[in-house]
Amino acid sequence: MATPARDPAGPAAGFWHDGRVIEQEPVAARRRPRPRVVVLGAGFGGLHATLGLAGATVDVVLVDRDNYHGFWPLLYQVATAGLAPEDIAHPIRAIVARQANVAVRRARATAIDLDERVVQVDEGAAIPYDYLVVAVGSSLSDYGIPGVRSHAFGLKTLPEAVRLRNHILGAFEAADSDPAGAPEGLLTFVLAGGGPTGVEMAGALAELIGTNLAVDFPHLDVSAARVVVLEATSRLLNGFSARSQAEAYATLVARGVEVLLDAPLAEVTEAGVRLVDGRELASRTVVWTAGVRANPLADSFATPRALNGTVEVEADLSLPGHPEVFVIGDMARRAGRGGAPLPQLAQVAIQGGRHAARSIGQRLEGRPTRPFRYHNHGIMATIGRRSAVAELPGGLTLRGTLGWLSWLGVHLVFLVGFRNRVVVLFNWAWNYLTWDRASRVLLEEGDDG
Amino acid sequence: MATPARDPAGPAAGFWHDGRVIEQEPVAARRRPRPRVVVLGAGFGGLHATLGLAGATVDVVLVDRDNYHGFWPLLYQVATAGLAPEDIAHPIRAIVARQANVAVRRARATAIDLDERVVQVDEGAAIPYDYLVVAVGSSLSDYGIPGVRSHAFGLKTLPEAVRLRNHILGAFEAADSDPAGAPEGLLTFVLAGGGPTGVEMAGALAELIGTNLAVDFPHLDVSAARVVVLEATSRLLNGFSARSQAEAYATLVARGVEVLLDAPLAEVTEAGVRLVDGRELASRTVVWTAGVRANPLADSFATPRALNGTVEVEADLSLPGHPEVFVIGDMARRAGRGGAPLPQLAQVAIQGGRHAARSIGQRLEGRPTRPFRYHNHGIMATIGRRSAVAELPGGLTLRGTLGWLSWLGVHLVFLVGFRNRVVVLFNWAWNYLTWDRASRVLLEEGDDG
Repeated sequence: MATPARDPAGPAAGFWHDGRVIEQEPVAARRRPRPRVVVLGAGFGGLHATLGLAGATVDVVLVDRDNYHGFWPLLYQVATAGLAPEDIAHPIRAIVARQANVAVRRARATAIDLDERVVQVDEGAAIPYDYLVVAVGSSLSDYGIPGVRSHAFGLKTLPEAVRLRNHILGAFEAADSDPAGAPEGLLTFVLAGGGPTGVEMAGALAELIGTNLAVDFPHLDVSAARVVVLEATSRLLNGFSARSQAEAYATLVARGVEVLLDAPLAEVTEAGVRLVDGRELASRTVVWTAGVRANPLADSFATPRALNGTVEVEADLSLPGHPEVFVIGDMARRAGRGGAPLPQLAQVAIQGGRHAARSIGQRLEGRPTRPFRYHNHGIMATIGRRSAVAELPGGLTLRGTLGWLSWLGVHLVFLVGFRNRVVVLFNWAWNYLTWDRASRVLLEEGDDG
Repeated sequence: MATPARDPAGPAAGFWHDGRVIEQEPVAARRRPRPRVVVLGAGFGGLHATLGLAGATVDVVLVDRDNYHGFWPLLYQVATAGLAPEDIAHPIRAIVARQANVAVRRARATAIDLDERVVQVDEGAAIPYDYLVVAVGSSLSDYGIPGVRSHAFGLKTLPEAVRLRNHILGAFEAADSDPAGAPEGLLTFVLAGGGPTGVEMAGALAELIGTNLAVDFPHLDVSAARVVVLEATSRLLNGFSARSQAEAYATLVARGVEVLLDAPLAEVTEAGVRLVDGRELASRTVVWTAGVRANPLADSFATPRALNGTVEVEADLSLPGHPEVFVIGDMARRAGRGGAPLPQLAQVAIQGGRHAARSIGQRLEGRPTRPFRYHNHGIMATIGRRSAVAELPGGLTLRGTLGWLSWLGVHLVFLVGFRNRVVVLFNWAWNYLTWDRASRVLLEEGDDG
């Protein structure tokens, strides 16, 4: 059957354009090339900057070292065998597949030449830009404490989470296989830093050990295992209200976690940790959940930076002196309404990404940009099964089961991809009903014999 | 409230046993120790041998190098980004958690001393046995072809499947990132061996490339990618009927796969493959789906072995001269009803494991063992979306959509763990309805910056 579309004598007007009209547009586009926006990082900030440019007459190049967008708020659940890595990772190319003006480049940005307006990358040709959005986040800061880089586990990437999961499960296998030969502290797990990551990891680890591993290892005295949170200051969950901090402390302790406050670290060694006050704790698993600093890519800028390496930005999130460059998310430093710098949260990055996209649109149209205003959606941390603290705007605070349910809901809503949402929800429901953590699979690279 | 259980003056009969009765049993057990059955390998054979000993008055030690039971018939779906590794892996300890007479040891058996009745392992103390079930399967055989071990990808373990997935996705990223610098054959994927694994992998790979990666890489000419099956003999799916073989061939070719029959390999190099007839094919991805031979642990035995290393066993699957040792699954060689050796299939291993468990029970009771009879449940291979061949006992053959549905059903039924079944079913439904393969995540070990 012949379709009208294939008929050269078909109607010149209507839904079908004849060949001539279609030919014209690419030629015009080639004559006056569209401005190129390079977005570095496909985390919350970079992804939302890219999505925010969907309707703009620009070409976007989204650059990331990985081929996936990771949902980092759930990373600790991968490390504690509650979720598979693939559950919280979504292929970047799938997310932007329908956005015709985006090209994805898998590469690590190594330097930015602000004068030449070009980004150097570790693989392939350098990438010139007309506008640049820098959203490469933060990396581990050891605060100068010896041994952190060589002996502590990081928890910032999926491979790090898998490595930590393997190490935790492997420690129990080793203790079970040779109880007499086990080194001291083999089953002592130290979380260095009592922020949200340390608290969430401690709660989940205590559950993994107390429910699943206690059943998996009937011949091992699993109750001798210890989960210890070390916090340098006098409180957990810095940034939360005193009542939430007290609730987190009480819940963790009730679940068997040892919490040491005012316990700054002096050193991490192969055999454990030493505190500033001289106390020592034998451990083969120290997880660094304390400090981050801006990604070293920030060294490309000569502009003022804070102690943690974050880049001071203008009110519209642009780099001082470079209105064509925007720095957003964990890497940027900007005072919020109260004067204190905006927190390093997913929501700040998401809103910053959208703002950068809007600002680029305004620049292109010759209009002035507007100052970035962060709309606080609240902060949350889960402490374990049916326990979380959520501090919503307007002073509303949810705790216990209600806080936990709101935590579940918010994280499901923001998890990218309908399929991931369903799989994560199923895993959570399964975990809740059966107490099972199905991903306790020790999957080692290189084990191919 | 005081419970009767805590009352020392409570009833001596009824549901509650007083202290004396509870004490007695372990003491008696210690005086006359129960025979110890050591099971090597927690694959289909070893797992079912262990489960078959649930009611026996023996102590079972289940030894595996991994902490999970892998469902290998679906391994190619991990390599082609359809499933996450955790979807087809189930923690061994979780499977046997309710079976009180089992202890799990994570270790690799390195040698068997038949005279001393002890198994040497790579970690921890050697394991003495009264009865031994050897079910460690097969490993890659390169048939003496140069370059297979150094340049081809294996597809026998979960880490190998993940490495292959990473490599395939990485090849497309590299081609997209630097089209001019791409080496010849970067997007040519060779499956060396046209058995079920080669056919299933080829079909799934053609789908991954043709549907998902074609969308993911809009700036790349994905249609230039090639999937090539090399088969040394004149037919695919050796062991299936001629009609099924023809169907597999026709379906693969219709889906864009190049199938080269009578094409024995001479060499694998970094740059590709060379055939015996001199033809060369540039490729950076050669997957070895051809040959296996018995696990090298079979070298512990001085008894007769076949060319592929498999161990000739007695009618009851015991090792000649060693009625206390059973060899089952891919590692054993035993003629079936027609005289040909039993195939290396999951069902042969499962039934062999159950038979070994029964035989040990009979030996313990001083009764004679019975010869193993394999009950043929059929053979199946899926060629891709809505296409599979299934040859059931009694000459019933299913093809196309019907074969595919029966393949889905059988694999779901035998997948261990209700949770895994639900997750895999969801992933398949998702994949079927949306054409999406959600696990195309390039998750590299060591990428921690």
